[in-house]
Amino acid sequence: MIDIHALTSGNSRALAKAITLVESKKLEHRSQAQELLEAVLPQTGNSIRIGITGIPGVGKSTFIEAFGLYLVSQGKRVAVLAVDPSSPIAGGSILGDKTRMELLSRSNDAFIRPSPSEGSLGGVALKTRETMLLCEAAGYDVILVETVGVGQSEYEVASMVDFFMVLMLPNAGDELQGIKKGIIELADALVINKADGESINLAEQTRRHYQNALHLLRHNSFWTPQVMSCSALKQENIEAVWGMISGFQIDATKNGSLSEKRARQAREWMSKLLHEMLDMKLKEHPQVKAEMPLLNQKVTNGETTPFLAAQRLIELLFSDKKET
Amino acid sequence: MIDIHALTSGNSRALAKAITLVESKKLEHRSQAQELLEAVLPQTGNSIRIGITGIPGVGKSTFIEAFGLYLVSQGKRVAVLAVDPSSPIAGGSILGDKTRMELLSRSNDAFIRPSPSEGSLGGVALKTRETMLLCEAAGYDVILVETVGVGQSEYEVASMVDFFMVLMLPNAGDELQGIKKGIIELADALVINKADGESINLAEQTRRHYQNALHLLRHNSFWTPQVMSCSALKQENIEAVWGMISGFQIDATKNGSLSEKRARQAREWMSKLLHEMLDMKLKEHPQVKAEMPLLNQKVTNGETTPFLAAQRLIELLFSDKKET
Repeated sequence: MIDIHALTSGNSRALAKAITLVESKKLEHRSQAQELLEAVLPQTGNSIRIGITGIPGVGKSTFIEAFGLYLVSQGKRVAVLAVDPSSPIAGGSILGDKTRMELLSRSNDAFIRPSPSEGSLGGVALKTRETMLLCEAAGYDVILVETVGVGQSEYEVASMVDFFMVLMLPNAGDELQGIKKGIIELADALVINKADGESINLAEQTRRHYQNALHLLRHNSFWTPQVMSCSALKQENIEAVWGMISGFQIDATKNGSLSEKRARQAREWMSKLLHEMLDMKLKEHPQVKAEMPLLNQKVTNGETTPFLAAQRLIELLFSDKKET
Repeated sequence: MIDIHALTSGNSRALAKAITLVESKKLEHRSQAQELLEAVLPQTGNSIRIGITGIPGVGKSTFIEAFGLYLVSQGKRVAVLAVDPSSPIAGGSILGDKTRMELLSRSNDAFIRPSPSEGSLGGVALKTRETMLLCEAAGYDVILVETVGVGQSEYEVASMVDFFMVLMLPNAGDELQGIKKGIIELADALVINKADGESINLAEQTRRHYQNALHLLRHNSFWTPQVMSCSALKQENIEAVWGMISGFQIDATKNGSLSEKRARQAREWMSKLLHEMLDMKLKEHPQVKAEMPLLNQKVTNGETTPFLAAQRLIELLFSDKKET
């Protein structure tokens, strides 16, 4: 069992154990995890949730280490959650995460945890969301959710954080820098890293380039996405990045848009889970499972319409008395 | 009742009546429509299904009229289905459709029908798919499904046709011509219309421009998307467009990719309908309906987790004996 008191007192071993429970794929653990989450729910929501993405090579680890150490020096407690660390592109692992953020991982006020490499219901994102809540219950003030800037995970991360930040390279020429256009549209800030040495001018050009580009995008919140540059390696301008985010946090809290955003995220998440649970019901239903291949075959061969086949599956799913 | 014999003999009044049945939103009509569709299913699938999109002003109506009249002159029977004619952008209506394709609408070998402006389950796309089947049963050789090049309907149309064609303006400068990039990626052919008079050179430049651009896109079928130009107004190069499409039809039939594509479309369509039916089950379930607002509220206020709320709705949905 998880010691809830130890967890909410900020004990990192209790937190680690709670996360392991949340990540477990065993059915009985699932209900225990939900009980735990419900119990700590009143203690959650007090952090600022920051998503950080960027292509490999942009210096995410160096940035998070510099940013995390700065926050710790300001008296903050910082949790770093890495989504999809097992992906071959991210190239991470528990050991990897601790090695690549060596100084930060040694701090008592920092907690670093990679997300599980796979999840069942809700996938990795469910676990990361729930882990985020546990970190908040354990009193962490800033949650950094890291993801590589490729694939689908950025969308998932953007949909669970308060502030979504894209790290970029000082490279004005290459317009999208390997980052998909859709990702830029999700960003609350673009931060051009490696603005040091000979790259300072290029970083400034890049900053202006994106500043102009962002003006063309429509924004439906009070916040106008910012573009700034920094050097994580030289620890330059890191405090400005935090200044921007804490400014956002203060304004968004005051004008209610932060709580609105979180409420919307929670409702969308609920709807997504609902659909995944329905899918699972279909997959697990014995008669649906038995007839599905034949119906698929008939639809494929044009012997029945997709409508009639779908209708038949719905009838089967709802024909028996109780959950199977 | 629909006279199936009249329908399959190509009687256009029987076809019109059958389409009206398929478009009906009444529940008893829905099952009649499905019976009808199942009865005619063996007579379907013998047409070439062509999707046509393009922004307003590109000359879609003129093109379809010229293309349709050419096909009729070649002994083909042609059905034109217009998706979203009620949209303010498309600016169509039944009367509008007949007026804007005046000559074609007078031909005995042409059948023009706008899609309904709204649909319930499966939306407009369901009706258009089913209407397509009815037209095939009535012996039409070529089905043209027209949609405006804005919004979501192009994706839906592309997912129901064999060949998807985007009409463009001779305007090399304006790279995407208001057409979304994703649409170009769906295209089996780009056809630059209005290649006449002073625009001939510009059209040729545009053709080369897109020819190069299309080379950069990856294709996962035997077919390499083509770029050609024509003038619907002057009826120039219309037969070349048909030559390209009938070449595609012959090759895709021979190598099996046409039947594969249709089978995949049918399976995806079935899966989409299945999810919409499940959504409807949720919406109609009295207890789900009763508890949903409270659960939404609790999720919004952070009083319960999205997971627990979704789980509760699933329990309610499956708790009773029979379909409600």
